[in-house]
Amino acid sequence: MIVVDWGTSSFRAFRLNADGSVRDRRAAPLGIMAIGDGDFAAALQDQIAPWLAEGEDRVLLSGMIGSRQGWREAPYLACPAGAADLAAALIDLDFPGAQVKLVPGLSARRTPLSVPEVMRGEETQLVGLLATGGEGDPATASTAPQALLVCLPGTHSKWARLADRRIAGFTTHMTGEVFAVLRDHSILGRLMPKGLTGASDASADAPGFELGLARSADAGGLLHHLFGVRTLGLFGDLPATEAAAYLSGLLIGHELRAAMPASAEVRLVGAAPLCALYARAIAVLGGRAVLAGSDTAAAGLAHIGGLAGWN
Amino acid sequence: MIVVDWGTSSFRAFRLNADGSVRDRRAAPLGIMAIGDGDFAAALQDQIAPWLAEGEDRVLLSGMIGSRQGWREAPYLACPAGAADLAAALIDLDFPGAQVKLVPGLSARRTPLSVPEVMRGEETQLVGLLATGGEGDPATASTAPQALLVCLPGTHSKWARLADRRIAGFTTHMTGEVFAVLRDHSILGRLMPKGLTGASDASADAPGFELGLARSADAGGLLHHLFGVRTLGLFGDLPATEAAAYLSGLLIGHELRAAMPASAEVRLVGAAPLCALYARAIAVLGGRAVLAGSDTAAAGLAHIGGLAGWN
Repeated sequence: MIVVDWGTSSFRAFRLNADGSVRDRRAAPLGIMAIGDGDFAAALQDQIAPWLAEGEDRVLLSGMIGSRQGWREAPYLACPAGAADLAAALIDLDFPGAQVKLVPGLSARRTPLSVPEVMRGEETQLVGLLATGGEGDPATASTAPQALLVCLPGTHSKWARLADRRIAGFTTHMTGEVFAVLRDHSILGRLMPKGLTGASDASADAPGFELGLARSADAGGLLHHLFGVRTLGLFGDLPATEAAAYLSGLLIGHELRAAMPASAEVRLVGAAPLCALYARAIAVLGGRAVLAGSDTAAAGLAHIGGLAGWN
Repeated sequence: MIVVDWGTSSFRAFRLNADGSVRDRRAAPLGIMAIGDGDFAAALQDQIAPWLAEGEDRVLLSGMIGSRQGWREAPYLACPAGAADLAAALIDLDFPGAQVKLVPGLSARRTPLSVPEVMRGEETQLVGLLATGGEGDPATASTAPQALLVCLPGTHSKWARLADRRIAGFTTHMTGEVFAVLRDHSILGRLMPKGLTGASDASADAPGFELGLARSADAGGLLHHLFGVRTLGLFGDLPATEAAAYLSGLLIGHELRAAMPASAEVRLVGAAPLCALYARAIAVLGGRAVLAGSDTAAAGLAHIGGLAGWN
């Protein structure tokens, strides 16, 4: 089986063994926004042709490829939902020479009238976490609790609650995107050295990151705290080289104070540099971070494929 | 006397009578960022030549023209500070054929180690409010309190405390700039019809504005609430035409909940459309808004000029 995590800005494909382990992998900067002509079938064919030639004939996709801007819009499945629910809701796509199916994203509403939440792609990572035990590194994790709190940091960070081996609900925080637009387009970025590309560029042990985290505890709110990135620089209280780290600490601090219960244990799933930042922030704020293993998306897709009879 | 409120994006000049009333006025989109060659003296000469020709020979400037990017950087005066303090700290500028002086901006720190605050231009509006009584419309204002809370909404909203006829302190909220960068550069703006130019484009009676205000009271924090602008649109719960108003209500709601004490009376100083939005939001959140008169900058500069012997 071939599985693909196909997002807005990246394409990551895995060729799996029958037991779900990764046999081969490839990644390309071919997110759905990079497929100018919208011919997703051709783009997929280009990427996985060698594996198809060697006999693979089943492909499972997840991520923004299932959005309105992707290959085909898959209706969101409502939480609570687990691997079996996702496996029962796969959508067939036309593709010459192989079966191609799409995993739908999830939606969540606390009450029928509350603001909706959506995810596309993170659900397979969460299924992967559940499928692989979800306890993270056994040397550091406490005994597995009944319910898990999982943070998937990123452009739109997700905080999910897992219970009864299903995704019970989740919330989204626009932390990564707000960081990027403020750095690239606001007065705050003018003080920062050029060449930074993301919140993860801030080092978890940068003094500015720690200062920003601490500032997020003060009264006054985020819109007020943001202006301090500028004034601390104007008054020489924060070197320009620390301004991005301070902004990152401020935003992540606000996210954590809103999303993380006191002394919570949090599973972190995502890219290593960003998870390192969040792990440091969670520890500073009194929580306990447990880093999940890598390739959770591939593990989740393998599990969903298995439940759909593809193993 | 000629007084000029010279900001980042606009130039507003007033020719005053001896009693400080406005005799004539002119405005141009010649903010300091628009003076490409940095020849501020020539730009000023162009704008006020007719008045100089009629015998005016004293010009008082305030605003970002006194910043590092302006004509000359004026050191910030520390709060508490009043009109007399500002008048005693004027800075002379070289200009052929007239005396030109610059009003410095203000800084504030709650404690020596706290994050600094800065303003350039708003101090003259605050002095103008004090000089003209500060009670707003006598028909709606309660008896003048000992201390006034003043909000100057904008790109960087200021909340100032006035006491003993001085500016005791103030805070800044980046509400307007955050609105603009999210609308123009984030995923939230993609759902909005083109042609909006600012938070003030939202109408105070737009249903979306009210919904955004209400949402700001919920748990979860601003970074979480922002994502709702997208998901409410995706689910058809918020028309695209209301998305900007919702975002505006959300941000202004967060600003007010952080900056405004319960049932406070707030003087509003600024452009009429934006003050109307804030007045509505203050009322919805249980405060009491009093609109200040117009031309507070000219009134403040007239008062400062008088104290400096220029009347």
